[in-house]
Amino acid sequence: MLTPPGISDIRVAAERLSGLIVKTPLIESPDLNRRYGGRILFKPETLQRTGSFKIRGAYNKLSTLSEEERSRGVVAFSSGNHAQGVAASAAMFGVKAVIAMPADAPAMKIGNVRKMGAEVVTFDRFKEDRMTVVRPYIEQGMALVPPFDDPAIIAGQGTIGLELMRQAKALGVALDAVVIPCGGGGLSSGISVAVKDASPNTQVWAVEPEHFDDTRRSLAKGERVSNEPGHSSICDALLTAEPGAITFEINRKNLAGAIAVSDKAAAQAMRDAMAYLKLVVEPGGCVAFAALSSGEIDLAGKTVAVVLSGGNVDFSTYAQIMAA
Amino acid sequence: MLTPPGISDIRVAAERLSGLIVKTPLIESPDLNRRYGGRILFKPETLQRTGSFKIRGAYNKLSTLSEEERSRGVVAFSSGNHAQGVAASAAMFGVKAVIAMPADAPAMKIGNVRKMGAEVVTFDRFKEDRMTVVRPYIEQGMALVPPFDDPAIIAGQGTIGLELMRQAKALGVALDAVVIPCGGGGLSSGISVAVKDASPNTQVWAVEPEHFDDTRRSLAKGERVSNEPGHSSICDALLTAEPGAITFEINRKNLAGAIAVSDKAAAQAMRDAMAYLKLVVEPGGCVAFAALSSGEIDLAGKTVAVVLSGGNVDFSTYAQIMAA
Repeated sequence: MLTPPGISDIRVAAERLSGLIVKTPLIESPDLNRRYGGRILFKPETLQRTGSFKIRGAYNKLSTLSEEERSRGVVAFSSGNHAQGVAASAAMFGVKAVIAMPADAPAMKIGNVRKMGAEVVTFDRFKEDRMTVVRPYIEQGMALVPPFDDPAIIAGQGTIGLELMRQAKALGVALDAVVIPCGGGGLSSGISVAVKDASPNTQVWAVEPEHFDDTRRSLAKGERVSNEPGHSSICDALLTAEPGAITFEINRKNLAGAIAVSDKAAAQAMRDAMAYLKLVVEPGGCVAFAALSSGEIDLAGKTVAVVLSGGNVDFSTYAQIMAA
Repeated sequence: MLTPPGISDIRVAAERLSGLIVKTPLIESPDLNRRYGGRILFKPETLQRTGSFKIRGAYNKLSTLSEEERSRGVVAFSSGNHAQGVAASAAMFGVKAVIAMPADAPAMKIGNVRKMGAEVVTFDRFKEDRMTVVRPYIEQGMALVPPFDDPAIIAGQGTIGLELMRQAKALGVALDAVVIPCGGGGLSSGISVAVKDASPNTQVWAVEPEHFDDTRRSLAKGERVSNEPGHSSICDALLTAEPGAITFEINRKNLAGAIAVSDKAAAQAMRDAMAYLKLVVEPGGCVAFAALSSGEIDLAGKTVAVVLSGGNVDFSTYAQIMAA
């Protein structure tokens, strides 16, 4: 296993990203503060370039490749947000990108990747192995940009934690907890390193969709376990099979716990984000917000940061959820 | 007529509002920049407290009242956004507020005003005169907080212009134009004073809904004219009868022009705001964005700021527009 990244890797990543990405603001709603009896600060990575946080890790990863490696192009597999992050980063470096995407990924995500100049290869997520799809490109000499289990990817996502702790300090508040959507664990592990460095007593929570709570069950068992096949969820961004080796190594040390939320709760959080925050959030991007209603996180009188990790959702899906 | 506010009034308003309102960020989309061939910087007042810019003017107006005047409470009439701004400001000062709202105002707006502790009195916007509805409260000694034609209201809205010019400077860009939704003209006139003070050559444009283009026609005629009755528009926030006396006095000096956009164009801009900016914008809040496609503003190679003035729209209306 590669060495997990530390705070210095995250600081280097933040320098590389400076001026290229959006320093997403902290947003709060007096109504929601009243509802939860605490102060909730939302970090909307929905407003990030490409509509999700994924560009942070992807660009940082591409920065760590030699110019010669980069010139041969990059390849990735992703349901959509990582795909857009890699495609945008490759375009920024002026190199070729090939992205393997599930044929049932949201049309908006596939369309955005193509618009950024990347080549999209679709595959059947239930029948084909994604590694088999990308292997020919790797054999041609293209570098794989993994979705989460990579020190440079984790360090890139961790820059959100650096920003968050600086923004909380500027507001004069100490964070009692940070709540983060979790698929493979790149986002939660990266942020946890930055949060724990600045404030060891701040709790870090990962939130997963029901039936895809591999991190929650892995934490309980003390080792990585996979999700049972045969389930589905509207949270397309978070449907990973199991935690990464590096991300889990970090998360088992840093997390206060992991929480599973239903699709119904994620959809309700999307409606709340629309009504109270005026933010468009995709299902998987809204699970940390949904977890505030789970009762598992102490909110009364506390200050809690919630990461809204992405906003790439099709019009039809979004309209359906808003009208429900 | 009262004296139009100057830049010093706006600076004083900004000090009063400091720490109480959101300094809304500037947001941009590489895709939209490519589409328009220029750099478009969006100022989302959708993220402002109460979901629109109106709290800036309302709070500033309440600040100018004596403690004795304020203690008797305040009264206002509004289709919804000004109502919420007044209700929130009254709650911040701990004084009573009565708001007259059209019975057909969006349910979300009426509900929000009640939640903030204000008393709502509904009236028929086609049959009743709004002044008749509020007069008994004024006679009881409550202070009227006008929606736009008031120096303190205009100065409060003008704080957006101060923020915008500072943010543009921090980005190292000079703004060629600023484009602003326009009902009675409080927002556009206030912003225009701050913009012209910092950068006399920056164009300021006001944008109105089709058939409610009283400012456009007033500018053409050189004097205030009213809208023809009998029309409707989805832009509920912008359905004023005619420009204010003070707002028009400022706008006729400062505006490069005014543009009218159709409901269809406003709805398309709402879908674009969802897809590219991940922002929920209400119809009236999106007309300045819609005006970018009118061909009337020079965008090629230019840097243009667009104010998204509010995001208070019902789920059903929003879902319908997203699904269209």
